Amino acid sequence: MSRAAPQSSELWSKSWDRSDPRASRQAIRGGAYTGYTAGIAPGFVQANICILPAKWAEDFLLYCQRNPRPCPLIARSDVGDPRLPTLSDDLDIRTDVPRYHIFRDGTFVEEVTDIHSYWRDDLVTFALGCSFSFEEALQEAGVRLKFLERNNVAAVYVTNVDTVPAGPFKGPLVVTMRAFTPADAIRAVQITSRFPNVHGAPVHLGTPGSIGVDLSRRYLDVGDPEVADDELPVFWACGLTPQLAVKNARPPLCITHAASSMLITDLRNASLAVL
Amino acid sequence: MSRAAPQSSELWSKSWDRSDPRASRQAIRGGAYTGYTAGIAPGFVQANICILPAKWAEDFLLYCQRNPRPCPLIARSDVGDPRLPTLSDDLDIRTDVPRYHIFRDGTFVEEVTDIHSYWRDDLVTFALGCSFSFEEALQEAGVRLKFLERNNVAAVYVTNVDTVPAGPFKGPLVVTMRAFTPADAIRAVQITSRFPNVHGAPVHLGTPGSIGVDLSRRYLDVGDPEVADDELPVFWACGLTPQLAVKNARPPLCITHAASSMLITDLRNASLAVL
Repeated sequence: MSRAAPQSSELWSKSWDRSDPRASRQAIRGGAYTGYTAGIAPGFVQANICILPAKWAEDFLLYCQRNPRPCPLIARSDVGDPRLPTLSDDLDIRTDVPRYHIFRDGTFVEEVTDIHSYWRDDLVTFALGCSFSFEEALQEAGVRLKFLERNNVAAVYVTNVDTVPAGPFKGPLVVTMRAFTPADAIRAVQITSRFPNVHGAPVHLGTPGSIGVDLSRRYLDVGDPEVADDELPVFWACGLTPQLAVKNARPPLCITHAASSMLITDLRNASLAVL
Repeated sequence: MSRAAPQSSELWSKSWDRSDPRASRQAIRGGAYTGYTAGIAPGFVQANICILPAKWAEDFLLYCQRNPRPCPLIARSDVGDPRLPTLSDDLDIRTDVPRYHIFRDGTFVEEVTDIHSYWRDDLVTFALGCSFSFEEALQEAGVRLKFLERNNVAAVYVTNVDTVPAGPFKGPLVVTMRAFTPADAIRAVQITSRFPNVHGAPVHLGTPGSIGVDLSRRYLDVGDPEVADDELPVFWACGLTPQLAVKNARPPLCITHAASSMLITDLRNASLAVL
């Protein structure tokens, strides 16, 4: 059942109103769309998903509370309830993510497009904010994201900075890197500071070595590591941090979204701005 | 009449309530204090002063409007009026600055502690915000300012970036440099962004060369150029920018405060915060 990421031709093979988050979720729910969610329902919040047995949920909630930069929690379901009513009144977490990754005891098992067969009455869903929201705010402010122009995503790195553990959840801080001119780096700090629920301000800039990062050694080879001579690398806490913590905790079952195939919500990105 | 900057022993030789901006101005007015104003009336705004003949005032006002980062105008007097009622109801610009610099045709003439003998009915006073206000906000937030620990001020540099001219006023952007760890640099962007009336956010960080700065070549040898291995240089627009523009414009008369001997106002620093 494991399947490769879809090709871009597939992204545009089906027809629905891609500006509408509900219509987009319905296309995903019906199996008509299983691709990446970047560019779909622009202006609306997309979320990282982590589903755990209730027995593990309290410690994971505490891990999010202790590490709000990498784990900005925007919703937690009731136990056994597949809905997330604060994100939409028409949302079923068992079907509404394009592709899911199944982990057993911390080990990847398979990728699926529907988790009905895995669903249990004791599962709890966590939805965490994602940097797509602040990338949109940056673009609207005229801050250039060169990696998007190169059809890539932000580069991902594992740092030597530890997160604050909670129960079995622990591990290093994972970061995304975006390269900016100094003036744009300052503007990016200002803009992303307005969005603490989607990772907020950068955690680091300039010297990669002081957080244990070698720009040429990306995590999972993800993203665009290029930094021009007149640019600085700027680092944000990344939603892959809790995925590493879950791997370390090895719960009997964990279900996440597949990378870049997020849960599309009805919340507007602008509604997350605190200033 | 020219005199050297006072020694620190002199700073503490007279007695008044240094926490009170009015008492401090009165001590200055009476000649009891002619020193630096850092550390006096903490919590209250101190201002850069530039006094020009009315004929030159419109262009200078326009220069400030076009260059708000180096020239954040917080008050302009009426023509010939030595008061600045929005800064205090007990303020006389002819006496209330510890030391003044007199310029004729753009050339320094002398330093004085009272400008009654220079006062004319056509003079206009401009008061510009100063970085002391945001330095206080940084310290209150626990951001370390190492140059203060070394009893120094921020280093000053002339950049290769031109300001926007207005009439005869033109010249390069002058900046101050403060060194921070990356995490504190990000925090400093956030904090100073709240204070656009006292230079606001940094204009540059990281690579000094891209704004034409060599850290070893300070303007007038002012300030602390040290940047540790784990630090980044962060640059803010500086109130010496308009002083250079005035030198270039060569008005027949210009009166400024002497460096670091500012006008103390009754405005609270916190009142300038926009967020």
